[in-house]
Amino acid sequence: MLIEHKFIDWIKQVCDAQVCDSQPHKHVVLGIGDDAAIVDHGEYLTVVATDLLADNVHFVLGQTPDHLIGHKALAVNLSDLAAMAATPVSVVVSFLLPRSMELEQAKEIFDGLKGLADQFSVAVIGGDTNCHDGPLVINCAVTGIVPRDRDTANRWNMSSAKVDDAILVSGDFGASISGKHLTFEPRVKLANYLAERYEIHAATDITDSLSIDLAAVAKKSGVGIRLNLVDIPLSEAASELNGTANIGQQNQIVVPAAVAAALFDGEDFELAISVDQETAKEILADGDCPCKMTCVGAITSSARFEVVSEGGQTVEILPRGYEH
Amino acid sequence: MLIEHKFIDWIKQVCDAQVCDSQPHKHVVLGIGDDAAIVDHGEYLTVVATDLLADNVHFVLGQTPDHLIGHKALAVNLSDLAAMAATPVSVVVSFLLPRSMELEQAKEIFDGLKGLADQFSVAVIGGDTNCHDGPLVINCAVTGIVPRDRDTANRWNMSSAKVDDAILVSGDFGASISGKHLTFEPRVKLANYLAERYEIHAATDITDSLSIDLAAVAKKSGVGIRLNLVDIPLSEAASELNGTANIGQQNQIVVPAAVAAALFDGEDFELAISVDQETAKEILADGDCPCKMTCVGAITSSARFEVVSEGGQTVEILPRGYEH
Repeated sequence: MLIEHKFIDWIKQVCDAQVCDSQPHKHVVLGIGDDAAIVDHGEYLTVVATDLLADNVHFVLGQTPDHLIGHKALAVNLSDLAAMAATPVSVVVSFLLPRSMELEQAKEIFDGLKGLADQFSVAVIGGDTNCHDGPLVINCAVTGIVPRDRDTANRWNMSSAKVDDAILVSGDFGASISGKHLTFEPRVKLANYLAERYEIHAATDITDSLSIDLAAVAKKSGVGIRLNLVDIPLSEAASELNGTANIGQQNQIVVPAAVAAALFDGEDFELAISVDQETAKEILADGDCPCKMTCVGAITSSARFEVVSEGGQTVEILPRGYEH
Repeated sequence: MLIEHKFIDWIKQVCDAQVCDSQPHKHVVLGIGDDAAIVDHGEYLTVVATDLLADNVHFVLGQTPDHLIGHKALAVNLSDLAAMAATPVSVVVSFLLPRSMELEQAKEIFDGLKGLADQFSVAVIGGDTNCHDGPLVINCAVTGIVPRDRDTANRWNMSSAKVDDAILVSGDFGASISGKHLTFEPRVKLANYLAERYEIHAATDITDSLSIDLAAVAKKSGVGIRLNLVDIPLSEAASELNGTANIGQQNQIVVPAAVAAALFDGEDFELAISVDQETAKEILADGDCPCKMTCVGAITSSARFEVVSEGGQTVEILPRGYEH
């Protein structure tokens, strides 16, 4: 029996897919093991996302704890659902395993994925597993739900940012490569908390980089961005960076390396939302909000991506991010 | 700009995802280009499937017309939906591109996928694209719908075959490697035709092989299988095979190579269904059925997989299939 078959048999045992956290999953009609699965989204809209991870692109096999590879494979997908304020329901997982991989290692990777799935009540409802003479590849596709009666103005599209909106972000930014990109918790709870209480004009999760992803929101919304560099919350790992960087389209301003990391590193997997100024004040004053939120700038009517330096200088920057 | 970014921009242009065949897709609320897509399955159950294809495993890049690679990547997924009698709605597509691939080749592959998507009114609603130093990998995850009021006895599970049922198959079998595995049309129309008119106890699509996939139905249903070898419809390509093969657990019977190919080759992507004998007669006599159907055997109460040879000998066989 090939490793892939043993792996599949083991996965089926681990994921009696109609059960999640020892309870039947109320949205799963038919789980893992048939030609396809059936999920029942009744009074909800179904949200679908997919992300693929590959060895030497998104992680380095042998240099990354195996369970964190599985964790990340699902977490990046749940981050997409969070960016739509959807509640995760199900995942289908495809594995392309290196022919030389031991079964135990494949299981360890899957365990990392299943642990996160259980944490968010996500049912593993199917997948596809193959071996090849090449690197490890994992693809997840997730479904989630959004209440059908949620205001269409509160659907968290990237194209709905409005001029003069405040830009709020969760958590902090920069140097994710030092560990956070593998261990982060997708902002599902925060997203649902905000969606239930506030009107969010636009939202995205920061994957490519704060500058690239906000630029994408601006482009889709037909607006501009102005960020106050001193307001961007810096991660501990970013703060430990020494030196400075020149940024701006003519490299005309000098900023701490930590600020450049926050703008350009990517894989922070934090939420960025665009809300009107009144809503921003309410969110920032909300003591029950499950995650620290920070106002980092505003939506402008220009087509430019501008940053305001510590010294008050406003320059246009070229968004860029981590190239895998 | 990297090829993957150019490729993504082009895909977004090709798939304004709320449009399919020049019409807004009635189940797509938010299509390609956001963090995730939203499909509305209102009065339907959502069916989800995924399949991953890799170079040198499921096709050989450079020896396979590019558009057929894309065709196959989606077709194998639609075949899974057909095996549940679901109507396809949407697909998310992940590409892992070899860094050396030219943009035009990537587009040609996608065009093959999009052509089939249009044919079946499937909206391409998102995906993920990366480059790496390795082989081409494509993953599709599809959603489909099943009417909520469809009789639960008619849900096409693999676990619902009943003793004395007839086993019917669509099309013909064997030697798929000579071309059909790349060009086949998923049996979506047939499945929906049958589901609307007949009670189908169990169903699957033949991917690994006729013997492996029927054995999986038998195992999940707690029943046995008896196939009449002379009744298995042979493909033209299989019929061209010369020679004979010894089959049976002790290799005790000799059959034409074509019959062995039909049993063991796999990737036929035909439907196999289990229905009571009366229903089988009706289906076989149904002149409007969109595809040739053939009765190849019956469900038994034993736990064995038996075949009956041309000479009337009954032997147990060991299911096996194509190892990629």
